[in-house]
Amino acid sequence: MPAIAYVNGRYLPLRAASVNVEDRGYQFGDGIYEVLFVHRGRLVDAGLHLARLERSLEEIELHAPMSAAALHAVIGEVLRRNRIETGLVYLQITRGVARRDHPIPSPAPRPSLVITARRKPAPPARIEDWTAEAITQPDTRWGRCDIKSTNLLPNVLARTAAQRAGAYEAILYDSAGNVTEGAASTVWIVSAQGALVTRNLDRHILPGCTRAALLEALAAEGLTAEEREISLAELRAAREIFLTSATSFVKPVIRLDGAAIGNGAPGATASALFELYMHRLGAG
Amino acid sequence: MPAIAYVNGRYLPLRAASVNVEDRGYQFGDGIYEVLFVHRGRLVDAGLHLARLERSLEEIELHAPMSAAALHAVIGEVLRRNRIETGLVYLQITRGVARRDHPIPSPAPRPSLVITARRKPAPPARIEDWTAEAITQPDTRWGRCDIKSTNLLPNVLARTAAQRAGAYEAILYDSAGNVTEGAASTVWIVSAQGALVTRNLDRHILPGCTRAALLEALAAEGLTAEEREISLAELRAAREIFLTSATSFVKPVIRLDGAAIGNGAPGATASALFELYMHRLGAG
Repeated sequence: MPAIAYVNGRYLPLRAASVNVEDRGYQFGDGIYEVLFVHRGRLVDAGLHLARLERSLEEIELHAPMSAAALHAVIGEVLRRNRIETGLVYLQITRGVARRDHPIPSPAPRPSLVITARRKPAPPARIEDWTAEAITQPDTRWGRCDIKSTNLLPNVLARTAAQRAGAYEAILYDSAGNVTEGAASTVWIVSAQGALVTRNLDRHILPGCTRAALLEALAAEGLTAEEREISLAELRAAREIFLTSATSFVKPVIRLDGAAIGNGAPGATASALFELYMHRLGAG
Repeated sequence: MPAIAYVNGRYLPLRAASVNVEDRGYQFGDGIYEVLFVHRGRLVDAGLHLARLERSLEEIELHAPMSAAALHAVIGEVLRRNRIETGLVYLQITRGVARRDHPIPSPAPRPSLVITARRKPAPPARIEDWTAEAITQPDTRWGRCDIKSTNLLPNVLARTAAQRAGAYEAILYDSAGNVTEGAASTVWIVSAQGALVTRNLDRHILPGCTRAALLEALAAEGLTAEEREISLAELRAAREIFLTSATSFVKPVIRLDGAAIGNGAPGATASALFELYMHRLGAG
């Protein structure tokens, strides 16, 4: 069965799914995206993802081509047509087609909406099967990483560097030597002093949905995390490092730039949060 | 006659010219572009643009889908099919189609090549008919602006702000308060002390082809420009400000953030360089 994509009102075989060469998403990266995990037919943290989508769209003055409810329905149809119970959904909204010129066109063209989906393995049962290595890389991204735009070339280059080093993720640091986030994930540590820390939200990092879900789950247990800057030195000295994202869930980093973190195995906190998040996944 | 675009080996009506939704140019901004001016059937500064294209491609490890000579021939065919004697050519090369995943795919997919063209008026005869206003805006772009990538959302937002302020260009400044460049042009000034200055090349600005052509033309006259940082204060106090780009040629900025520059008319240096560049255009 060929993969099916939704493109501007039509369900098409992915190979035939296309956008015009003057789509501003193609010429300017003038677009927003989201990736959602689907677990046993249910969209994980859908409310968080659709709220973030709305916020990103607002920040670049892009009008959603349909309501959140309609979007939810189309996503469901894409999953149904692709017979996906467990996998991921990719959703992209761009400014649409207009004669090439930098400013946002007025009147606005019809935004383009593309939704694709694919099967993924079920989440891992054991955190020991879900470990990763990471490298550190300078953060060369733009000044509005809180907007989930398709301007992802720096992320592509950072993840390429990671892959070539045999690692999964590139943990990015700013010009002051502080961690921002992973190229496609949120970074958390358990510091040498035992504090659970993740980077505070501002314009330099994406407000992670899995980050928010995990903070919420922690709060429900009466626990908190420190939200503040993390220096590279603190990162390297951390007892534990782990990443969160819609598709990496809670993923322990056991080696950083080739050096073992902690004893080189998932730590107690990452393991507990992995269980907490898996419980949340299964509880839906 | 409908506009014709070249897309991966085919000449198609622009409205039917499309790329797959999984083209990495669309999903990641994983691509490079160039814009060339065509004057009386001749590509202006073609050697400079094609050399810069090659450099941008190398920087992101994207292999050109054809030789510079073949590219030149295809551009010529696009111009012929669109019956363009004077206008612009837009050329975009992206990583091609691959299942969505951040790292550069290996083996590499076939890159996508899109070329479009459109008519433009002949260059202005008099600089007085070619003046512009500009605003200043923080530079929020990424750390590798020397690569002419399609990650242009910050440029889109800056030019939108300019347009809304009734201006043509947004002149960008970095966190230290120094000018980098325009959202789509190189910035030059004649300082209060009378020095011709343009920003030195590094990773924070695009190596402008018109900038290079003008420096070359100046050198042929035994003249030079200072290539160094320009503070916002120096910009505001400048006797003259002008912009260069493939399609703005030499364009005097007569008002900056609403305040007149010099006496609010094109200055002597901008006028002389305008003539010099126009001579170069006509001399081809």
